[in-house]
Amino acid sequence: MSAAEETAGGGGPVTALVHAGGAHVLPLLGRVEDLLREVASGHGPVLTEHAGATIAAGGKRLRPLLVILAAGGHPSGDGEGLVRAAAAVELVHSATLVHDDVLDLAPLRRGRPTVFASAGREAATQTGDLLFARAFALLARNGSAEQVRALSDAGSALAGGELLQRADAWDATIPLERYLRRCELKTARLFEAACILGALEGGDGDGPTHPAEALREFGRRIGLAFQILDDVLDVAGPAERTGKHRGTDLLDGTVTLPFILARERDPRLGAIDPRAIDTPPKAEAICDRIAATGALDAARAIALEHVAAAKAVIPAGLAERERAALTLVADGVVARYS
Amino acid sequence: MSAAEETAGGGGPVTALVHAGGAHVLPLLGRVEDLLREVASGHGPVLTEHAGATIAAGGKRLRPLLVILAAGGHPSGDGEGLVRAAAAVELVHSATLVHDDVLDLAPLRRGRPTVFASAGREAATQTGDLLFARAFALLARNGSAEQVRALSDAGSALAGGELLQRADAWDATIPLERYLRRCELKTARLFEAACILGALEGGDGDGPTHPAEALREFGRRIGLAFQILDDVLDVAGPAERTGKHRGTDLLDGTVTLPFILARERDPRLGAIDPRAIDTPPKAEAICDRIAATGALDAARAIALEHVAAAKAVIPAGLAERERAALTLVADGVVARYS
Repeated sequence: MSAAEETAGGGGPVTALVHAGGAHVLPLLGRVEDLLREVASGHGPVLTEHAGATIAAGGKRLRPLLVILAAGGHPSGDGEGLVRAAAAVELVHSATLVHDDVLDLAPLRRGRPTVFASAGREAATQTGDLLFARAFALLARNGSAEQVRALSDAGSALAGGELLQRADAWDATIPLERYLRRCELKTARLFEAACILGALEGGDGDGPTHPAEALREFGRRIGLAFQILDDVLDVAGPAERTGKHRGTDLLDGTVTLPFILARERDPRLGAIDPRAIDTPPKAEAICDRIAATGALDAARAIALEHVAAAKAVIPAGLAERERAALTLVADGVVARYS
Repeated sequence: MSAAEETAGGGGPVTALVHAGGAHVLPLLGRVEDLLREVASGHGPVLTEHAGATIAAGGKRLRPLLVILAAGGHPSGDGEGLVRAAAAVELVHSATLVHDDVLDLAPLRRGRPTVFASAGREAATQTGDLLFARAFALLARNGSAEQVRALSDAGSALAGGELLQRADAWDATIPLERYLRRCELKTARLFEAACILGALEGGDGDGPTHPAEALREFGRRIGLAFQILDDVLDVAGPAERTGKHRGTDLLDGTVTLPFILARERDPRLGAIDPRAIDTPPKAEAICDRIAATGALDAARAIALEHVAAAKAVIPAGLAERERAALTLVADGVVARYS
């Protein structure tokens, strides 16, 4: 499953954060939304329509939230730089989703038709390229080469991670390390970049308030947990929660952590040819067999270790409110699956 | 035809330049090549292979040459910034070609299998994304937000231009203005960006030596001439020069300047449904009818006007050698078609 096949709806980290008194981040998130809408327009009617629809389709804006929180509630200047950084991260994420949908021939994302489905692969490919280019134009306005490099490195990693996933497709024997490497590239790196960008935009202009390396590790761990739990959810269902049938990853040939752990426990699973899993009922049956091994709990436990590690690296020097907010985000990544 | 379906081989602007005594640019172009090769590596074996093959397949490196010449032979510092800018422009160009080949299902480019043909649409889409991301990572090292924005804006225009072309496909009635707008977006803007980047990297650090706006217009005019002549070549052939059959644009549904001018002269051409041009012999027959109207000479004349306008804006303050080099590039764009 792609990093960002995030189910829409309530209960995400933003909601938890607001309930816990972190409402001060909402105005910044609102400005990010405004900027995203502005960025989508002005590139001809076709691209404006599709880029706009992509952005309007939303998602939980988890990455922009991380950017804002990593700035520690003290954005430098008027916060414009922080808002731009948050929007740029979301644009790179959105660009990747649009291209993924083309490659997956995906009809729906977050319950709406994909750009691919509504406008075809050509419009979708170009829409992705446009969103990608706009991300860097936006971030460049911050005047920080370090920021552009951080985002660009994450963009390169995303491409490499997606490709690795496709190269590994239909291989039931891929080693655990390979799966984790994929998660690092296709998910964790952009979470890391979100935290780095926030750290760089925090403080009073004399350098970041927060230790960027600790925040990078926070982002990395959250990203890994996020991806692993996404992959667990694809097996665990139920469909009414995810909006999809169980086992869509298996139908795409994508072997993820639950299967990898389950094949150790049930060798007959390891002998399966993924290409034989070619109907939703067959995929659901394999999901049941994976669940029967206890692999889902084992995978969840690994994700929870990453969440715990993320919380452990939250810099002690942060204000209590900021520490609480980052903790909530870490817990929120788990909460949406429980 | 895409901006960059440039026939490989001798006789290009670089060759002309070297013959005319501009050999001082060659070491810089050599450093650009080294950097491009370096950038392609280190992203896993699959992307390294395909990004590397894309870069190794070459082309005339016209855009890097423009970057270098626009710096006026006086790169600031050790020239590293200029080399990075030149490589970044070529990377954006290459990324676009790789994505275009996916959309066109193109088997060959410059006589070699495309990434799409040799590795599939998934690897090709991700290779394009990687090259795009690497371009901005590289350019960010120059520490100039203005440069990143210039390249990113050109990248957005490329996406818009390609999409416009696809939206216009199979429409024999598109107005001339629409065709020219397409040329601006999909070709001229990146040539402009090349000149702007070069101007910004020229001089002694106290701002560019050359007037950036004049160089931008130079790039724009060269880009328009380049695209128009590319489109003329597609109709004029012969195939042994272009490596393709005549009329490939028509077979793709792409209506270009020769057809637009010819339909004014031969109204029966304007009544043709482009979808009926569905075999190479039919396309060649239409090419003959276009040629019979004299539209090819008329289109070439328009391109030559752009070349003349480009030469006219070469800043008078440049050293004689630099003026001569830019003039040679302008003439070189024409020469490969004569």
